[in-house]
Amino acid sequence: MDKKEYIIRQLGRTKNKRYESYVVTRIVHLLNDFSIKFVTQQYVSRPEGRALTDLFFPQFGIHIEVDEGQHFTCAAIKEDKVREADIVNATGHEIIRVDVTKSFEKINSKIDEIVEKLKVLRCNEQFSAWDIDSEFDPQTYIQRGYIDIVDHVAFKTIKDACNCFGHNYSGYQRAGATHPNPHIMLWFPKLFPNGEWDNQISNDEKTIIERNMNDIKAREHIFSHLNDKEKHKHQRIVFAKVRGNLGDTLYRFRGLYSLDVQKSNENTGLVWKRTKTKVNTYPQPKN
Amino acid sequence: MDKKEYIIRQLGRTKNKRYESYVVTRIVHLLNDFSIKFVTQQYVSRPEGRALTDLFFPQFGIHIEVDEGQHFTCAAIKEDKVREADIVNATGHEIIRVDVTKSFEKINSKIDEIVEKLKVLRCNEQFSAWDIDSEFDPQTYIQRGYIDIVDHVAFKTIKDACNCFGHNYSGYQRAGATHPNPHIMLWFPKLFPNGEWDNQISNDEKTIIERNMNDIKAREHIFSHLNDKEKHKHQRIVFAKVRGNLGDTLYRFRGLYSLDVQKSNENTGLVWKRTKTKVNTYPQPKN
Repeated sequence: MDKKEYIIRQLGRTKNKRYESYVVTRIVHLLNDFSIKFVTQQYVSRPEGRALTDLFFPQFGIHIEVDEGQHFTCAAIKEDKVREADIVNATGHEIIRVDVTKSFEKINSKIDEIVEKLKVLRCNEQFSAWDIDSEFDPQTYIQRGYIDIVDHVAFKTIKDACNCFGHNYSGYQRAGATHPNPHIMLWFPKLFPNGEWDNQISNDEKTIIERNMNDIKAREHIFSHLNDKEKHKHQRIVFAKVRGNLGDTLYRFRGLYSLDVQKSNENTGLVWKRTKTKVNTYPQPKN
Repeated sequence: MDKKEYIIRQLGRTKNKRYESYVVTRIVHLLNDFSIKFVTQQYVSRPEGRALTDLFFPQFGIHIEVDEGQHFTCAAIKEDKVREADIVNATGHEIIRVDVTKSFEKINSKIDEIVEKLKVLRCNEQFSAWDIDSEFDPQTYIQRGYIDIVDHVAFKTIKDACNCFGHNYSGYQRAGATHPNPHIMLWFPKLFPNGEWDNQISNDEKTIIERNMNDIKAREHIFSHLNDKEKHKHQRIVFAKVRGNLGDTLYRFRGLYSLDVQKSNENTGLVWKRTKTKVNTYPQPKN
């Protein structure tokens, strides 16, 4: 998918609310700078379930929310505030609301203000232009030296994720792979019940529970980890298999998780706690 | 419906083609001038059936067509050419095509070119700013002194149309009304078979056929017109009842039609031929 395709498809998705399309397309077109990435209907994790925002600029950590009438009952305002505080706390992101019950002039001037703010942020020296090819390319992260959750890193294939950690695979399909540090594994799970595994991730993404659906296999799997004296199996870098918001499959970086030996048991399954949101990358060994 | 509502609803309708929303919203937002009216998915009459264009600027008579891949087979190109020539011939309008199979940069620079062209046209001294309230107000046309088909005039009610011709109705529901000239009638027909009347308008809008569904009534109605020696019933100013492209009922000005006595008969019905596309308006008589 090239940038043209991406932009067309992202803008084509904004059909939920009556004013959403107007606000989202107006911001994107007036900004008129496709070195700035945007995502429509972005999922954001928060302690109480996930929330969806109308437009997200990942380079700036800014979300735009189109507030239609339904947001202005007292209960809704309170709920919005909680939701907003959750997102801000969980991510450090900023949320800007556009109240579309106001006059057309006020809506447009609010949009102008947002566009101006984004243009100023874009002038920051640290700004790194959106490159749709390089963002899925392992070389980008190998050269950067790390993968950080704030950058919303995802790969199109398992092999691309593996190749950020010293591998040189042209194809790889298994859900686990080695890491230069023998105490760490790369893991590519489906974090939902999927037939063989009953996996779950908490809403704040800090805890993953892993358990085989089959009780005998579950028991075996759990004890092989808990009894691993050398703790080779006690840390995992997680790239969760997800559906991207354009319907494509992605392996999204979630962080480094460590086994919580105390909480893990035969009934619950293995309990993994996130211990790092940024991990080092490794070049492929020279021939 | 105010301008805000109109713009939101018009932009919300562009969901047919994949690139249509991108092109339409980009032109409207970059133009960024709501004194310029636009209509999405505008019907245009042509000799061989009606055609739909993606975006229309009535003040300039300019249509924008988003050309996706399907337009580039030889047969489709030929068909498009015929369709385009038809529209241009029937209306004098210009059609500008945006080829969205081209690169993103080329699409955007084509859009810039269109926006530039519209801005230049807007600087014309003759330009009259879009006023959504006044465009449905009889006073606008009374002051102007005429109603012209090139201005795409439509009213929300029959009384508003009547009041352009000397009436001062606060409500009026009948399909016919008088005109200061006793040889002319105002007519508000449904130009499709509608239970009582089997009416039709030709694709080029130049001919209307009117016939009652009931043969006895049809005969009586036809002969009362054909035998009207003083020809009081031989000319009609037509405002056809139509559904506007936002689903609202409108009475759209079609012109002055004159009875074609030769072609009218008991079997065919009354045949009306358009003889004028511009008619004078009349102020309400002073008390």
